[in-house]
Amino acid sequence: MKLVVPVTVRWGDLDAYGHVNNAAMLVLLEEVRVAVFWHGHHLPAGESATLDRDESATFVAHQEIEYLAPLGYPRAPIPVSMWISRLGGASAEVCYEVPTLDGGVAARARTTIVMVNATTGRPRRLTDDERALWSRFMDEPVQFRRGN
Amino acid sequence: MKLVVPVTVRWGDLDAYGHVNNAAMLVLLEEVRVAVFWHGHHLPAGESATLDRDESATFVAHQEIEYLAPLGYPRAPIPVSMWISRLGGASAEVCYEVPTLDGGVAARARTTIVMVNATTGRPRRLTDDERALWSRFMDEPVQFRRGN
Amino acid sequence: MKLVVPVTVRWGDLDAYGHVNNAAMLVLLEEVRVAVFWHGHHLPAGESATLDRDESATFVAHQEIEYLAPLGYPRAPIPVSMWISRLGGASAEVCYEVPTLDGGVAARARTTIVMVNATTGRPRRLTDDERALWSRFMDEPVQFRRGN
Amino acid sequence: MKLVVPVTVRWGDLDAYGHVNNAAMLVLLEEVRVAVFWHGHHLPAGESATLDRDESATFVAHQEIEYLAPLGYPRAPIPVSMWISRLGGASAEVCYEVPTLDGGVAARARTTIVMVNATTGRPRRLTDDERALWSRFMDEPVQFRRGN
Repeated sequence: MKLVVPVTVRWGDLDAYGHVNNAAMLVLLEEVRVAVFWHGHHLPAGESATLDRDESATFVAHQEIEYLAPLGYPRAPIPVSMWISRLGGASAEVCYEVPTLDGGVAARARTTIVMVNATTGRPRRLTDDERALWSRFMDEPVQFRRGN
Repeated sequence: MKLVVPVTVRWGDLDAYGHVNNAAMLVLLEEVRVAVFWHGHHLPAGESATLDRDESATFVAHQEIEYLAPLGYPRAPIPVSMWISRLGGASAEVCYEVPTLDGGVAARARTTIVMVNATTGRPRRLTDDERALWSRFMDEPVQFRRGN
Repeated sequence: MKLVVPVTVRWGDLDAYGHVNNAAMLVLLEEVRVAVFWHGHHLPAGESATLDRDESATFVAHQEIEYLAPLGYPRAPIPVSMWISRLGGASAEVCYEVPTLDGGVAARARTTIVMVNATTGRPRRLTDDERALWSRFMDEPVQFRRGN
Repeated sequence: MKLVVPVTVRWGDLDAYGHVNNAAMLVLLEEVRVAVFWHGHHLPAGESATLDRDESATFVAHQEIEYLAPLGYPRAPIPVSMWISRLGGASAEVCYEVPTLDGGVAARARTTIVMVNATTGRPRRLTDDERALWSRFMDEPVQFRRGN
């Protein structure tokens, strides 16, 4: 199951070409993760996020993103699809698809995040609760066009 | 040959963890590209950049980045290594290595850029001058730890 | 009448102190203006915004902002108050109050914007429709603590 | 005496109008303060900054900025003038003038910063060393065109 997370594009995310800047796109994806994992927004009814900033932090270990079409300035939040493609011992692979304004695909991306103990700064294992919740959003890894 | 491009980290690039934010890291890499390709800074003596914003634009088609260690706040510009790993008909693959403050590696990354005609918005072939200049900075593709 | 406009604070708006950065605060205020003036969000029932990006642009001529208390990271959009304190021939003065997470005041600010013809880049007079709509949100100018 | 501090405008500081965004301008001013107060860059020969991030923090209490002309994209760092217009017990008023690319004035601004003890988070008095150094850059308060 893929989640659909509405994200607000800011005027300041546009660059001088009038498109969402390549780095700003990763800020949007970060906002998707924050909304779901930290705030528990946009989860199916009855589910809630379990991360607590006093106890845990997430570090980004790896990102890959393919920009397929420019993303112009939307007048409303855009619906970004998000899902999990892999759960490791202390890490998760998050995939996304960002739409264009006319229903095409602006970008596809994948982020590897590592769960960290907020006090020690060391990686820590996913809890059973996290694993149970996140397993509900498992889906196939995003496919990039380029052949690596 | 790899170029070494000093880049200024801004106070605002830090996140609440006190490290350069994952998306801000791509802004730093963009500044590396801009300095070299558009401004012709940090090129070997006698070389100059040939891109003209009235004629050309560069679009980012793909990026991959691996974060190996947090990058704290430096008191001076940090020396980012940059090189070209592939030249296509209308595209180039740019690789980078970003150091930590104590000489380790904070991040490795690769960006595929596409040359675009500023008027038509269509991809255009690299010119002979561009190809000649950029060939001087060819080196092996950056190696990521993860096995994809 | 003051409008109340919910604004999403991004994780990346925080600085290394864990507070919304001083410049990021102005980005939030820009998002408030955009939501109201350009998108027509959060207007009273029956009202709609009349600005059209093909015809008009707004330039920021002046800003003053007082930071009264740090703004931490909210788990939901924060309700920013916005109102108009003056309508000139081609300009408007917009005032704001940004709350803290516990109901105090994080910042008060005032922005002077100038309406510009998007084609000529020259200031243009407010239309009767704009003047009628914006007059509904007139209120007393924001008061700053410092005595200038 | 006014200091002149070269500041790098980033490609990402531009908005879709092709000008430095109004909030990004405050980021540039923050970089000016950081360079001088924290890093001790661009000081007269023999002078050094005395602020230590382990001991002190600076909070921004108030800012006023007037945008006089759009700032386009420069190919080199721009020379921002910076000086002190007032030293209080625990605070300082910093003034700036930001040039346009053709030698005009893009913006004038003034920031009130408060010195804070990094451990307690409480304001602390300027030290004699700080007062002695900063007094060397005292000059008349920046004049804004508007009459408040």
